[in-house]
Amino acid sequence: MTPASLSGPMSFSRPMGFSHIAIIGLGLLGGSIGLAIREFLADASTTGYDRDPDTRRRAATRGLVDKVCESSPEAVAAADLVIFCVPPGAMAEAAREIAGSVPPNAIISDVGSCKVSVAKALAAELPDNPVIPAHPVAGTENSGPDAGFAALFKHRWCIITPPEDANPALVARLSAFWEALGARVESMDAAHHDRVLAVTSHLPHLIAYTIVGTASDLEEVTQSEVIKYSAGGFRDFTRIAASDPTMWRDVFLANKDAVLEMLQRFTEDLTALQRAIRVEDGDALYEHFTRTRAVRRSIIEQGQDDARPDFGRGDH
Amino acid sequence: MTPASLSGPMSFSRPMGFSHIAIIGLGLLGGSIGLAIREFLADASTTGYDRDPDTRRRAATRGLVDKVCESSPEAVAAADLVIFCVPPGAMAEAAREIAGSVPPNAIISDVGSCKVSVAKALAAELPDNPVIPAHPVAGTENSGPDAGFAALFKHRWCIITPPEDANPALVARLSAFWEALGARVESMDAAHHDRVLAVTSHLPHLIAYTIVGTASDLEEVTQSEVIKYSAGGFRDFTRIAASDPTMWRDVFLANKDAVLEMLQRFTEDLTALQRAIRVEDGDALYEHFTRTRAVRRSIIEQGQDDARPDFGRGDH
Repeated sequence: MTPASLSGPMSFSRPMGFSHIAIIGLGLLGGSIGLAIREFLADASTTGYDRDPDTRRRAATRGLVDKVCESSPEAVAAADLVIFCVPPGAMAEAAREIAGSVPPNAIISDVGSCKVSVAKALAAELPDNPVIPAHPVAGTENSGPDAGFAALFKHRWCIITPPEDANPALVARLSAFWEALGARVESMDAAHHDRVLAVTSHLPHLIAYTIVGTASDLEEVTQSEVIKYSAGGFRDFTRIAASDPTMWRDVFLANKDAVLEMLQRFTEDLTALQRAIRVEDGDALYEHFTRTRAVRRSIIEQGQDDARPDFGRGDH
Repeated sequence: MTPASLSGPMSFSRPMGFSHIAIIGLGLLGGSIGLAIREFLADASTTGYDRDPDTRRRAATRGLVDKVCESSPEAVAAADLVIFCVPPGAMAEAAREIAGSVPPNAIISDVGSCKVSVAKALAAELPDNPVIPAHPVAGTENSGPDAGFAALFKHRWCIITPPEDANPALVARLSAFWEALGARVESMDAAHHDRVLAVTSHLPHLIAYTIVGTASDLEEVTQSEVIKYSAGGFRDFTRIAASDPTMWRDVFLANKDAVLEMLQRFTEDLTALQRAIRVEDGDALYEHFTRTRAVRRSIIEQGQDDARPDFGRGDH
């Protein structure tokens, strides 16, 4: 491609990139965004801030952003995109801290797992800026400044939940940003997002946290036995039950209604299977267990999980 | 080591190996045992049988055993160890088929996930043989004659549940067999086994089957959305919910009492967390979510799971 073609008509339809991105919160998500920008958007510069001094030090050592700042106003001072990567319950305070320091044309976004409450908090604290919330559906059970890596968003979906009056050009800019980081982008209403994620993420975490707790509290089966024989299925649940407790506390509080509704449906279904076991209705059990296989197949076909047996765990 | 030392006093304490092992049922477990014997116990010969002709053909093509027989009496005719690798509900019939054909000194064992009911069925059908049930706590979500591999038992535990009057020399022989295949062996009472596995394996499968069903049945969230955003946690559950439906139907029927009791405790714990969400008790949620992290750490420390984030899934 010649330089001439870069300035040709095609370039007008390509959304303008960001030149300076500020990342507030330098844990798994914030750190991964910083590393991914360095890898995939090398022209953009990054600043970052975390309220934990230890995290700031680690972030500087790992080079998660070009410059780790000592305050969030300093980090956002020259930004055209600010991404909040803090737990849902900390969004309002983090946004309040930069009010008055952030340039008024900077897009405000985030990576929170709940969108209605976070969108409301960001818009309330930063009324002069365009707020376009987003949620990359990606993560691991690890957290903190050492957990991030540049490829976290590759092949994962990022859901953008623009408010009704959002400027389509800004939405396109943010979408292009996430696509550059390797994600596929989908746009939806914040309330719908919260219902979808209640079932694909929040309920699974709640169930996993519950069963790991149940297994730890038994009297007649020892903790040591639970751990030794965990390869029978239990160990799968312990992974997501090792996720960041602060973030997940906030998620359940912020998306309370949708989570409680999905939990109600889950409990009904569990009660039906419980009854099938009690009355020894083998046909009902068999029918249910056959149906659930197809879902796994679709997830693998669509590139959302590893096709190898046992997630391709290293011990095979 | 010189040949002389092999026949020295030490060799008397080493349990005698098996010279001919018959495997009834050539799916994931049976196939893996056959392949592991070829790799780790090359002196032993193996025969196998499966009631499904297609499975027998695939087993012969893959070489899961030295000889695939057309009947189970033929497969066990010269065996000193018979291992039943069929679903718990099929054990009695499979045992009945070989009664009268199996040599009376052959040890009868199995790989069933429930031990009280299976032990009873095997002892009733084969009263003249020593019955020593076993359960290798290993597997993947795949089933059938193409699913097995020789390393399945490496670093996994195999639980042996000898009856009270079992001959210790035979128990030692069976233990040595499983250790040769790479497993670590533990011995316990069959009833205790069934309670331990109810929590480390059966309950997790029931919960996973339930939540995958719940997610598939929602009206306002489409199946396509559930699949797209499954990386938020849901996809982890779909793996074990893709396990063999026949086997799992049988497990829940065979271990009904222990499963229902563990389910009762799980439901109580889930109700407590549900209440904490409803009354917005963030401290209770945080406390619970912090506690469950330690269990994951122990599982990894004890080599029962992959330490890499996200199970080391291939997409990182």
